[in-house]
Amino acid sequence: MDKVRVSIAGGSGYGGGELLRLLLFHPHVEVLQATSERHAGQPVSRVHPNLRKQTQLQFAALADLQPCDLLFLALPHGEAVRQIDHFISLAQRIVDLSADFRLKRPEDYREWYHAEHPRPELLHEFVYGIPEIHRDQMRTARFVSSAGCNATAAILGLYPLYKHDLVSGPAIVEVMAGSSEGGNAASESSHHPERSNCLRSYKPTGHRHAAEVLQELPAGDGRSIHFSATSVDMVRGILATMHVFLKDDLEEREVWKIYRRAYADEPFVRIVKERDGNYRYPEPKLLAGTNFCDIGFERERGSRRLVVMSAIDNLMKGAAGQAVQAFNIMHGFPERTGLEFPGLHPI
Amino acid sequence: MDKVRVSIAGGSGYGGGELLRLLLFHPHVEVLQATSERHAGQPVSRVHPNLRKQTQLQFAALADLQPCDLLFLALPHGEAVRQIDHFISLAQRIVDLSADFRLKRPEDYREWYHAEHPRPELLHEFVYGIPEIHRDQMRTARFVSSAGCNATAAILGLYPLYKHDLVSGPAIVEVMAGSSEGGNAASESSHHPERSNCLRSYKPTGHRHAAEVLQELPAGDGRSIHFSATSVDMVRGILATMHVFLKDDLEEREVWKIYRRAYADEPFVRIVKERDGNYRYPEPKLLAGTNFCDIGFERERGSRRLVVMSAIDNLMKGAAGQAVQAFNIMHGFPERTGLEFPGLHPI
Amino acid sequence: MDKVRVSIAGGSGYGGGELLRLLLFHPHVEVLQATSERHAGQPVSRVHPNLRKQTQLQFAALADLQPCDLLFLALPHGEAVRQIDHFISLAQRIVDLSADFRLKRPEDYREWYHAEHPRPELLHEFVYGIPEIHRDQMRTARFVSSAGCNATAAILGLYPLYKHDLVSGPAIVEVMAGSSEGGNAASESSHHPERSNCLRSYKPTGHRHAAEVLQELPAGDGRSIHFSATSVDMVRGILATMHVFLKDDLEEREVWKIYRRAYADEPFVRIVKERDGNYRYPEPKLLAGTNFCDIGFERERGSRRLVVMSAIDNLMKGAAGQAVQAFNIMHGFPERTGLEFPGLHPI
Amino acid sequence: MDKVRVSIAGGSGYGGGELLRLLLFHPHVEVLQATSERHAGQPVSRVHPNLRKQTQLQFAALADLQPCDLLFLALPHGEAVRQIDHFISLAQRIVDLSADFRLKRPEDYREWYHAEHPRPELLHEFVYGIPEIHRDQMRTARFVSSAGCNATAAILGLYPLYKHDLVSGPAIVEVMAGSSEGGNAASESSHHPERSNCLRSYKPTGHRHAAEVLQELPAGDGRSIHFSATSVDMVRGILATMHVFLKDDLEEREVWKIYRRAYADEPFVRIVKERDGNYRYPEPKLLAGTNFCDIGFERERGSRRLVVMSAIDNLMKGAAGQAVQAFNIMHGFPERTGLEFPGLHPI
Repeated sequence: MDKVRVSIAGGSGYGGGELLRLLLFHPHVEVLQATSERHAGQPVSRVHPNLRKQTQLQFAALADLQPCDLLFLALPHGEAVRQIDHFISLAQRIVDLSADFRLKRPEDYREWYHAEHPRPELLHEFVYGIPEIHRDQMRTARFVSSAGCNATAAILGLYPLYKHDLVSGPAIVEVMAGSSEGGNAASESSHHPERSNCLRSYKPTGHRHAAEVLQELPAGDGRSIHFSATSVDMVRGILATMHVFLKDDLEEREVWKIYRRAYADEPFVRIVKERDGNYRYPEPKLLAGTNFCDIGFERERGSRRLVVMSAIDNLMKGAAGQAVQAFNIMHGFPERTGLEFPGLHPI
Repeated sequence: MDKVRVSIAGGSGYGGGELLRLLLFHPHVEVLQATSERHAGQPVSRVHPNLRKQTQLQFAALADLQPCDLLFLALPHGEAVRQIDHFISLAQRIVDLSADFRLKRPEDYREWYHAEHPRPELLHEFVYGIPEIHRDQMRTARFVSSAGCNATAAILGLYPLYKHDLVSGPAIVEVMAGSSEGGNAASESSHHPERSNCLRSYKPTGHRHAAEVLQELPAGDGRSIHFSATSVDMVRGILATMHVFLKDDLEEREVWKIYRRAYADEPFVRIVKERDGNYRYPEPKLLAGTNFCDIGFERERGSRRLVVMSAIDNLMKGAAGQAVQAFNIMHGFPERTGLEFPGLHPI
Repeated sequence: MDKVRVSIAGGSGYGGGELLRLLLFHPHVEVLQATSERHAGQPVSRVHPNLRKQTQLQFAALADLQPCDLLFLALPHGEAVRQIDHFISLAQRIVDLSADFRLKRPEDYREWYHAEHPRPELLHEFVYGIPEIHRDQMRTARFVSSAGCNATAAILGLYPLYKHDLVSGPAIVEVMAGSSEGGNAASESSHHPERSNCLRSYKPTGHRHAAEVLQELPAGDGRSIHFSATSVDMVRGILATMHVFLKDDLEEREVWKIYRRAYADEPFVRIVKERDGNYRYPEPKLLAGTNFCDIGFERERGSRRLVVMSAIDNLMKGAAGQAVQAFNIMHGFPERTGLEFPGLHPI
Repeated sequence: MDKVRVSIAGGSGYGGGELLRLLLFHPHVEVLQATSERHAGQPVSRVHPNLRKQTQLQFAALADLQPCDLLFLALPHGEAVRQIDHFISLAQRIVDLSADFRLKRPEDYREWYHAEHPRPELLHEFVYGIPEIHRDQMRTARFVSSAGCNATAAILGLYPLYKHDLVSGPAIVEVMAGSSEGGNAASESSHHPERSNCLRSYKPTGHRHAAEVLQELPAGDGRSIHFSATSVDMVRGILATMHVFLKDDLEEREVWKIYRRAYADEPFVRIVKERDGNYRYPEPKLLAGTNFCDIGFERERGSRRLVVMSAIDNLMKGAAGQAVQAFNIMHGFPERTGLEFPGLHPI
């Protein structure tokens, strides 16, 4: 089989580095170029030292980007939409990891990003990048907009409940996340003596990923989703803990059936719910480097609260891994291709 | 002034060790004895190495406990109530750090501890140990039952709201806690390779401290509080993030006034809410070794959700520090005595 | 090609789990059995949760072990030698991850393990398991004894220097290691509140792996190697920092040539020495899950000291990964087979 | 007693913050001013959030510094010497925490700092700031130059051995240190995803603190000290592991006597050497916030190697704490004044 020739615009960030790690080992991919303005001409392994002795590839400048079959965009937010026409001229297919094309309604973009979307007419050409929800559209899509990391964890955790209209009243989504979510640019808030040992409310309200959750969850009646994000002393990983109240007094095994039915055939969703041991619930510790989304839940006795837990690696299922999963779907490859790494224990 | 002669039954655990650290430096205290069955006859600094060169005190056996002015009980849950008559015969005053006498209604004990309380007639002789709520009773109390650590964080965070009946519908309390909360006994779940890097749902539902929160918060109408606990990779510290919906559309500065009024004169409660910097909200990282409870909040735009954050050191304001604060109140000492340590930054 | 049928005696520990992770994905391997007395009958993924949805394999009891082509022994030290005749009767080839057959001279075993070796006549049938030194013997070996993790890091770091007799006087080997090195059994010293944030002298002198280093390094004149081990707050990973004094005043590029020549064709040894950036020297952070040994060095100006740094993942190049590398050599497979994972950045 | 009126030039860094924490609670000190160019006019608690509700002090600009009794300089290296005449005009006594006046010989400064010292005539007016060595000079000193953090750990660990001329041949000093050593300025190397989980050779050779060690240790014959520094995932704390070879075959109890004699009356040096337990050797984990230097050692059987371990909190005994200790000596206060905090366990 001919290899798909791909390039990465924005290859020096954490998302770009993870794409490189995955694509360099993908059996059906040839990586043509990865760009970095700051590091153009340097080996990619200077910036991504895990790739030492794995590749001779050097960064190219964005201006030197050549035509390819599919272009991954891992640029800072705002850059993808600014140069989108150029990118479309270079590649028939695009997977954008930024937030630029995630929201489908221009008014949502205005509300959450406090600006007019520069190219609203393109929004609906980008399929929102969660395969478990939009797989069919992806098969024929030219453009995919990869989902936000926190949004991915929340949406996959809540989707079966909202799809079947089981939730009554507001849902609380509490996301705890590691520092790699903030990207590779150093700042006062990422300074190790300040960020280490932290347990820090990051966005108690107003997190932009909430807009994606609201967009993607089936509406039902009176849907009301409230998002908070907290930073923990971890590099990779997201745990979303979601609190909903059920319309009906479902028993745990009924909830179990709903999740099983929703995700039984999904290669990257696992229902995690064990009676004992250290790993009774989903946990990002186990997921570093993997594309899994682990989902668990627990019913509260004496109320209708259901607590749903959802864990991912923010750079994998929350970014590069999910993008490669979309890539596989777009090209008809088995979805697991290049994404088989099972994770480490202990770590 | 004559010193108060105190002893500690159960001095080898983390709570007992923290009591020793505080009481050995307390200007109005003479520590007579600290007991440990396993370490009887050994210097306390063998078990609490931070006390090296600070004291010559050795552990005594519980059977050798002598009469004293006030006895701190830092025994495993169930032990305090089992021997309570003996302890009462030894000391006129008792501060119990265990959960044995926290719940005032025997039916609550039955529901949450799945057993009949052995001495229900004593429950009301123990003042629930949060000074900010029960200071007046403490002044004349013989017995104080120190509050649970998670409960302390949640109660102090929510109290002003429930006192003024401002909350509508259910409240979600998400507590994130470090490993010292589990005590000093090694187990499979505390094994470093498993517990390190964890972000682990510990009690999504059913945490016993919820019973204390329900007991202590003023009832209002339709009070409904839902508690979850998550373990993070930290030794000391608790962050409680609480999500409530306000009856009225209060602005942030109105909420601010309510908290200011509630806690203005409190020596150990600080309202933390800054516009920028790393420490805009309460954070346990800053509180290691201190007796503070830092409280902050944020209104969500477009809904009536209020997010309240409350942070403590679980071994201090969540255990030994709060017990010494109660001790100070019981003896008419200034509340800050022996509790002045301001915490470290960075740490 | 027919698959090699392998089993693992002692599959529930960290070494056994890592073997399972590697072998289940190895293209030329069929895993027949993995044993665990405690977990017999349970899915291996109950103990190794990273293997959820990866395998249906269940643990067998050791007594139920069936004949196979190659048997990996990942038993507690002492168990392999105790039952070695039985294991030899089951499999033509054995790779033992324990320390039982590492030392070739019974007197060394006596000195370092304070006991007579039970089966000294077998010691020379086991090839010491560092492929970079014993590859040729491994090709035809029936038995391989996997090297100690700290010993592997130290030996690979120092080997080129001692091979060319470049060292004068004593060498100091300072090994810093994570907690997984201690295995999966909880203890007071592995209790998270005690082990977390630690920077703890573990074996300032007397570490048994020193015996392996002394055995494997070419003798030269006056060889004298002094080993210390320090525990750090990390789960996986070893950094060995080695201080030697050179006989001759070699420049850095001469040292470079010596290392390049020694390891140029090695698939799992990388010379790491960069002028700037965060990763100028070898670092275990980059190696989690990989089989690499990264080696770097630096000459001190004004003296003949050479500092050599060597980093590995203790469960991979220090245990299971190196065992699979040996397995590949024994069967003529390309050495990288099943060991291609490049590691994660950041992590 | 009248309080000593002190000010801090450079109060916004980690050293300055720690000085503020100590001096605000010091019974014989009145803090007049703390300067920060960037934060002038802001409350010091904005930058040092552990001081919230502890002080109303605001930062002043350096230009507004008023006369005081003693001036602490916690400025970036190079700034103290540049403005030293001005500082001398403001205060009769100065304690400088920077490296500007540590080295007594201009040629040492040239060698290690690669520049001519701007004011070599002042070097000998500054007493090198380790009280255990220079206490007598401090009593009458006008100026003290606080010792480097790594140097303090190494010098206190090795001093008794070199004083009695017990060492033969080269000594290896391996220092492991946390991130607060690097100060409060964010950089690529302090970015949390890169710095977290690190075990990173920082200065295998060429660390400037080596110059202080060479200066302060008694010369003996053939003294040769070789310094390396490694960064670990910790905020506060230094562990120095030192490897020396003894001239004579001293038994451990003889070594013990030497250390006991050297430090018996020292309020902040503890000999730590226990037979069992988690804390057999010195460990910085126990020392956060304290002014202790814990020292331990172990003889290697079969060689003359002695391993000496020395642990401190780099911001306390390695900086602000030792500076306050010097301050106490300069004013005839008991040395422990304001430095009594015993440290936390667990932490």
